[in-house]
Amino acid sequence: MGDAQNLQSWEVKASSARERRDAGLAKVEPKLEGIPDQLPLSSQDLPKGVLTAREIEITEKYSVTELLKILRERKISVEEVTRAFLRRAAVAQVAVNCLTELLWDQAIARAKHLDSLPEPKGTFFGLPISTKEHHGMVGDNVTTNASYIGWVGDKHGSNLLYDILYSEGCVFYARTTQPQTIMHLETSSNVYGVTVNPYNRTLTPGGSSGGESALVGMRGSLLGVGGDIGGSVRCPCAHVGIYGFKPSSKRISVFGQRANMAGKETILSTPGPMTVERDVLELFMKTAIAAEPWRHDPSLTVKEWKPYHFTKPLKIAVQWWDGVVKPHPPMLRALKEVADACRKAGHEVVDWNCESLGHDEAWDIISGLYWPDGGKEVLSLIKGAGESVLPLTKFIIEEQPNVKDRTVAELWELTAQRDAYRARYAKAWTATAANGEREVDVILCPPSFGAAAPLEQSRYWGYTSQWNLLDYPAVVFPVTTVDQVKDVKDTSYVPKNEQDRFVYDMYSPEKYVNAPVSLQIVGRRQYDEKVLAALVEVERAMGRP
Amino acid sequence: MGDAQNLQSWEVKASSARERRDAGLAKVEPKLEGIPDQLPLSSQDLPKGVLTAREIEITEKYSVTELLKILRERKISVEEVTRAFLRRAAVAQVAVNCLTELLWDQAIARAKHLDSLPEPKGTFFGLPISTKEHHGMVGDNVTTNASYIGWVGDKHGSNLLYDILYSEGCVFYARTTQPQTIMHLETSSNVYGVTVNPYNRTLTPGGSSGGESALVGMRGSLLGVGGDIGGSVRCPCAHVGIYGFKPSSKRISVFGQRANMAGKETILSTPGPMTVERDVLELFMKTAIAAEPWRHDPSLTVKEWKPYHFTKPLKIAVQWWDGVVKPHPPMLRALKEVADACRKAGHEVVDWNCESLGHDEAWDIISGLYWPDGGKEVLSLIKGAGESVLPLTKFIIEEQPNVKDRTVAELWELTAQRDAYRARYAKAWTATAANGEREVDVILCPPSFGAAAPLEQSRYWGYTSQWNLLDYPAVVFPVTTVDQVKDVKDTSYVPKNEQDRFVYDMYSPEKYVNAPVSLQIVGRRQYDEKVLAALVEVERAMGRP
Repeated sequence: MGDAQNLQSWEVKASSARERRDAGLAKVEPKLEGIPDQLPLSSQDLPKGVLTAREIEITEKYSVTELLKILRERKISVEEVTRAFLRRAAVAQVAVNCLTELLWDQAIARAKHLDSLPEPKGTFFGLPISTKEHHGMVGDNVTTNASYIGWVGDKHGSNLLYDILYSEGCVFYARTTQPQTIMHLETSSNVYGVTVNPYNRTLTPGGSSGGESALVGMRGSLLGVGGDIGGSVRCPCAHVGIYGFKPSSKRISVFGQRANMAGKETILSTPGPMTVERDVLELFMKTAIAAEPWRHDPSLTVKEWKPYHFTKPLKIAVQWWDGVVKPHPPMLRALKEVADACRKAGHEVVDWNCESLGHDEAWDIISGLYWPDGGKEVLSLIKGAGESVLPLTKFIIEEQPNVKDRTVAELWELTAQRDAYRARYAKAWTATAANGEREVDVILCPPSFGAAAPLEQSRYWGYTSQWNLLDYPAVVFPVTTVDQVKDVKDTSYVPKNEQDRFVYDMYSPEKYVNAPVSLQIVGRRQYDEKVLAALVEVERAMGRP
Repeated sequence: MGDAQNLQSWEVKASSARERRDAGLAKVEPKLEGIPDQLPLSSQDLPKGVLTAREIEITEKYSVTELLKILRERKISVEEVTRAFLRRAAVAQVAVNCLTELLWDQAIARAKHLDSLPEPKGTFFGLPISTKEHHGMVGDNVTTNASYIGWVGDKHGSNLLYDILYSEGCVFYARTTQPQTIMHLETSSNVYGVTVNPYNRTLTPGGSSGGESALVGMRGSLLGVGGDIGGSVRCPCAHVGIYGFKPSSKRISVFGQRANMAGKETILSTPGPMTVERDVLELFMKTAIAAEPWRHDPSLTVKEWKPYHFTKPLKIAVQWWDGVVKPHPPMLRALKEVADACRKAGHEVVDWNCESLGHDEAWDIISGLYWPDGGKEVLSLIKGAGESVLPLTKFIIEEQPNVKDRTVAELWELTAQRDAYRARYAKAWTATAANGEREVDVILCPPSFGAAAPLEQSRYWGYTSQWNLLDYPAVVFPVTTVDQVKDVKDTSYVPKNEQDRFVYDMYSPEKYVNAPVSLQIVGRRQYDEKVLAALVEVERAMGRP
């Protein structure tokens, strides 16, 4: 009886969240027409069939930088840009299920207001920026549920970062999905269902900021904000072929976000930009930091954003694998192509041999630190609301051997292990400068074992979570797509362990039609500026402007 | 039987630690002569009766800057300087019981080595630097006990900070006492007994870096290193009238120190310089940070030391009291004198009304965060070795109502309270810039409720621990001494609460003969450079160069 009531009540709550979302979508004007009943594998061509030529122009023709320029010059109105992105976001929602809310009225009112100003004002003047739902939202009557049934309808407010972006003139117009617990590298929940990859709907758009990546991957947004504690910005960006940056923690504020385990500080999440354009990463960081957010969130590092400039060729260390799980063939090809290009451009390219650095041990530590209470708080929030525990929640809590309900003393022990591991890794990096050698500037590595995984298969985090444990800044950037001819399976490979076997068995090129393949550049802790500067050099080596 | 054995064994261990200390003292050449059997109230005149005229000249005539200059110019040998400070430290030991070890052979060997170099090298070339025992030590055959009987004789090594100072050419020659648990604002332990104030042996030299302050207060050292998690650098410096700086955490490394509760990160300790000369604080910070210690201790903030320069008069907020405990008359007089001098020099002086900012609540939070396991680990280390739990250990663990053995979830709750409190304080500071006003630059406040307390009476931490909870940088500097005429007791004052009553009842000027009185300057978190720049301006206003 109790259970049945609970079940009913959770369904009611989930519906109410979707009704709120649908109410925003229902306002879309003109109505969406031209979407086929049977959605195609790739959603990339859908907008063309629905949007006007002008809307296509606005959402596809410009880079962010160009769009900001014509907005500032008032060659285009904020309202026209906003309406185009609202409509395109609505198409994205139908195609890949990426929204939790479309802020139709609010965004248009904001746009009209910005248009009415005598002078354009702010770095992001007039730019529609999409946002991850659990961060909260500027404005009145905000609710935030973080994809927990138990929190559906809960009143909430804005956060410090969004207040800054807003004061820089942006338009908030779309809030995006995240998975149950916000701790999957995919994006599904009992509230909003499954978000899929805009290049191949049998694949995940990644997670936990997968609503963002799916939306930006549809150009339903050119700049979104995600958050990353184990790969949640980088993995989704990599899976849709966009740019994403995870800064070192405490450069950008999480102040005001809604999340579990408030007060946990063993491993910290950080917001990060997700965008179609490389140079916007730095613009975002610079703007967020120039506001001196530490005057309101005193936990932040007090340090200006100071762009870095290389004055000589880089020393790039390539991590071909992490010693635990072998990347899929398209990933290895991407690595080789970019490493070759860097060498050809005059950079020093060496190997990052991390077999002795225990990336498996790093996972043991971080997985334990994610859930120092064994997941008790989160599981009770889920079960208490009557919703089901999803498979990837089980994976990340119940199936990790080092996730335990710890005493404070046991927590200290694990935290001390973390610190010892960090020191060991720093020592290894510093040692690259021994014997008169130059120190490695950055590591070039996979952001995942492969392209976007088939749904529910994202069960190895090592390629991103490693850099969360170390708190190293890391950026992902698009490189190629899976090639049915070049990226054949290596049938002679013998997996080294159970995880390696799982990942090896997953691969077969035909599962990954159209799938983008991205790479990751990692720097030492708090050398955020250097990582973005390295990305510029690497892309130049690749022949990009 | 077991107890008796245990008792015996702890006494044996304590003796062995003191024997190690005494073995170093026994090497002092020439032997100390001229110390009276009955030690006087103030130890300030003792060195004159023991040391040679040349030793007095070396240890008293020069500032640190001057001494470094003549050492660099080789106008004096490192060995001669080292021997003078070794002898003076030995006198200090007899007078105030401040040493755990005198590194006679090691220091002289080091000095000879430095003298043999073709060129002087390093910022601290030839300077004897004294150090707090639990930090560890450069060299072979090091043991570190942190004043725990249970750890006596334990092998240990150096730490990152000392490695840096060593590579900058200093001479380590004396290790100093700390109290049981390193968590008293005084300095006594079952290993080394009681360290007393060099100006008045009935008073404490403060703690927990009280061995350092007692030694520097005797000019047995001109620069020492302490550590601060609740006042342990500032309180002892204040009590002997020297300069001491507690930087924001994570600018100077604790990497390699010996301490309890490894892995605890709710409240962090930081090393800090303790010295006779103001400008050495900045030299110390600059040198420690220029070494890029984050390449070895990746938990540190990656940020250069960038000296700050005021270009207009300061806005100084005076905290006359903390809303909990009224400072003693000499402290209030010192505040008034310095505030008046600042006003006269053209600075804007306003009040820091913190009654509404809940400094008592801050204490509840930080006292709980000091001991998230209710003190279990530490108490079991003490009791397990058979030694007694000292009164100030009982005070700081057992007598604090918010010290509890917490679950991880309860720890998160308290940590979240800490973060909320920090945000509230930041908001109040930021609000001083509202309505077109200038923002407060620094707070001028007491570093303690009064001058050095009579032994075992240091039972109110609020004037220092407040800034540890907030992680604000803070510097203390000497102002005056207790004046038997001016600093009469305010007999009309009615204490506001039990703590206030305790502190009020403690005061009576004749208890504080000769006692130095110091003040504290506090800045916003991570504005370390600004705090030291403010100290220069405040001292100039006081008529100091």
